[in-house]
Amino acid sequence: MFNFDLYLPTRLVFGKGRIDELPEITKSYGSKILLTYGGGSIKRSGIYDKIKELYKGAEIFELSGIEPNPRITSIRKGVEIAKKEKVDFILAVGGGSVLDASKNIAAGAFYDGDPWDLVLDASKIGKTLPLFSVLTLSATGSEYDNSGVITNEATHEKMPIFGNLWPVASICDPTYTFSVPANQTAAGAADIMSHTFESYIVNQGNTLTDGICEAMLRTVIKNAPVAIAEPDNYEARAELMMASSFGCCGLLNIGRESSPWVCHGLEHELSAFYDITHGVGLAILTPVWMRYSLNEHTAPRFANYGVNVFGLNPKDDVMSNAKKAIDLTADFFKKIGLPSKLSEVGIDDSHFEEMADHVRKIWFGDFKDAIRPLDREDLLNILKGAL
Amino acid sequence: MFNFDLYLPTRLVFGKGRIDELPEITKSYGSKILLTYGGGSIKRSGIYDKIKELYKGAEIFELSGIEPNPRITSIRKGVEIAKKEKVDFILAVGGGSVLDASKNIAAGAFYDGDPWDLVLDASKIGKTLPLFSVLTLSATGSEYDNSGVITNEATHEKMPIFGNLWPVASICDPTYTFSVPANQTAAGAADIMSHTFESYIVNQGNTLTDGICEAMLRTVIKNAPVAIAEPDNYEARAELMMASSFGCCGLLNIGRESSPWVCHGLEHELSAFYDITHGVGLAILTPVWMRYSLNEHTAPRFANYGVNVFGLNPKDDVMSNAKKAIDLTADFFKKIGLPSKLSEVGIDDSHFEEMADHVRKIWFGDFKDAIRPLDREDLLNILKGAL
Repeated sequence: MFNFDLYLPTRLVFGKGRIDELPEITKSYGSKILLTYGGGSIKRSGIYDKIKELYKGAEIFELSGIEPNPRITSIRKGVEIAKKEKVDFILAVGGGSVLDASKNIAAGAFYDGDPWDLVLDASKIGKTLPLFSVLTLSATGSEYDNSGVITNEATHEKMPIFGNLWPVASICDPTYTFSVPANQTAAGAADIMSHTFESYIVNQGNTLTDGICEAMLRTVIKNAPVAIAEPDNYEARAELMMASSFGCCGLLNIGRESSPWVCHGLEHELSAFYDITHGVGLAILTPVWMRYSLNEHTAPRFANYGVNVFGLNPKDDVMSNAKKAIDLTADFFKKIGLPSKLSEVGIDDSHFEEMADHVRKIWFGDFKDAIRPLDREDLLNILKGAL
Repeated sequence: MFNFDLYLPTRLVFGKGRIDELPEITKSYGSKILLTYGGGSIKRSGIYDKIKELYKGAEIFELSGIEPNPRITSIRKGVEIAKKEKVDFILAVGGGSVLDASKNIAAGAFYDGDPWDLVLDASKIGKTLPLFSVLTLSATGSEYDNSGVITNEATHEKMPIFGNLWPVASICDPTYTFSVPANQTAAGAADIMSHTFESYIVNQGNTLTDGICEAMLRTVIKNAPVAIAEPDNYEARAELMMASSFGCCGLLNIGRESSPWVCHGLEHELSAFYDITHGVGLAILTPVWMRYSLNEHTAPRFANYGVNVFGLNPKDDVMSNAKKAIDLTADFFKKIGLPSKLSEVGIDDSHFEEMADHVRKIWFGDFKDAIRPLDREDLLNILKGAL
């Protein structure tokens, strides 16, 4: 058992119609609001009008157009508004990208320099604006954690930001994901699963969090296909939304060996260069990484996964179960409509060398801590294996 | 999926030696401390001296002798010290009873009347003293929740207190439980399991928290016998301590049908009258309650438990698996040395009528919400069945 801290100060407010409670939840924080969102979906879905109605009388400033891989240029705009208008809090409405951007804005509002500095150096994060969220996509778990991932399009860098960035409260209404299309639902499912794999596929776990990780995986594997087939199936959407919040908050890591989150590290390189959907990149990389990491030493972890998640027979050969578990993972991603090769999303090997260098510089943890230790050559092999 | 709020603001600081970080964690809260504890075990174990050393220069006031079922008389003493000395925060060192009492003291310190009022009426809880804890027993989960259970020995009442009572931070060092004797280790295990059953054995769960509950149960069933056989087995003690924190914090209930926590309600009646160990009462009542609740309608839940926790064959008959699961639960409690009948702990039926009346008045939730709805007669039958 490894030492750990667990700190989850965000209040999750989960269920249909809970947005009505938002003005009560935010009332002690002031009435000058920076509303952040992405494209027009929150207008089509009615959430935008709902918020205007709920906050009648408040001053609402808006930052719209936050990109799926949120860019520092958008964050700079948000910081400018927050500073100029002296907003009291941020209300982020969207998925992980809107939340991630809003976290950087929350910290940037009290920082004199460029908000990208805060990505490069977390120690520069001081006071932050209170952040509230209304979640519209089940994927990154940013609604329940203290981190984000920001893209600097000028330098092709996509990097994590960490700090005192927990939302105060997140409204998680599964009905807001009814309109999420199949491909985004699938990508979100892959993201939740990848968060879980990054915690779960390590040499040393423990009974409790192994079991929690397996429950996370069973939840997504059961419900993503249902949500794709029946977009307004409340139970399926709700199970995915609940799982989303636990993927990245630290609960899955407690007491376990830490891992360098190999697929996340590599995928952020891919989407920094090609702006692909994060979950799509993860679905492509994950089975390749798993196969690359499989050996006599690591097979028991993969076999356990197969037994406890896919119901493989524990009496069967360990290596055979391990291989089956990885195949079933790849099959699942295909079944929910995700691509399995980088070539399918227009990525070739032209930036692999840069990616392998960059990820080793900026990503947290040494890739030698992965379940199969990885050097630069190994990272390149995984990328090439995904072509 | 049922609507829920999840709010877990306590910082868990888990692992060997983490107590050294306590002064840093508490430093912004002041230096007048109310140290609360039970008997002499924290002196024998060296934690008392350690705290004196860590807080050299601070003013430490002490409330010792907090009872296993903490009494309002102790709490009144603590409130008196807190008010008189104007302490800055409370440092609770012990198990659930010390923590529960300290929560009542934390709220009582800013309340003009008798602290028992705060048990009877949570709306009277206002400001509270910051509370920190050092856990020495894996059982109640009070280190990571906002509630406690207080005994009024004058009226034979043992009642829950709820409110803004989360510890700011809890130090969870598994080595502090090495000296916990076998019977208390077993009783703690039964308490953790009962917290889980009270959430898990309901008509409607969900994939994720069903899985988390099953992981909790597997964790305790695997590790309690090891901790009893090898009291200083760090892994086993650590797994129990980690599970303890999640038993009562709300995580196991999210999105599930709520339950009236039948065994906890009845057990608090037993220990209000007879001052028995809470976990012992739970171990006696739980299998009786399970058998009483088993019928054609509820059998699938018990059978699932058997399959996912004890590895029963899912292809076997549902009722047969359900019965086996309950028998295995009773066997497990026996195996770790817990009594299985009230008569073994000196309890007869002389107060059953009062208990059945009282619990229906004070306990949260209507017992008609239990997996098998229970009226007064049913509660009496369960108590009699446990004789």
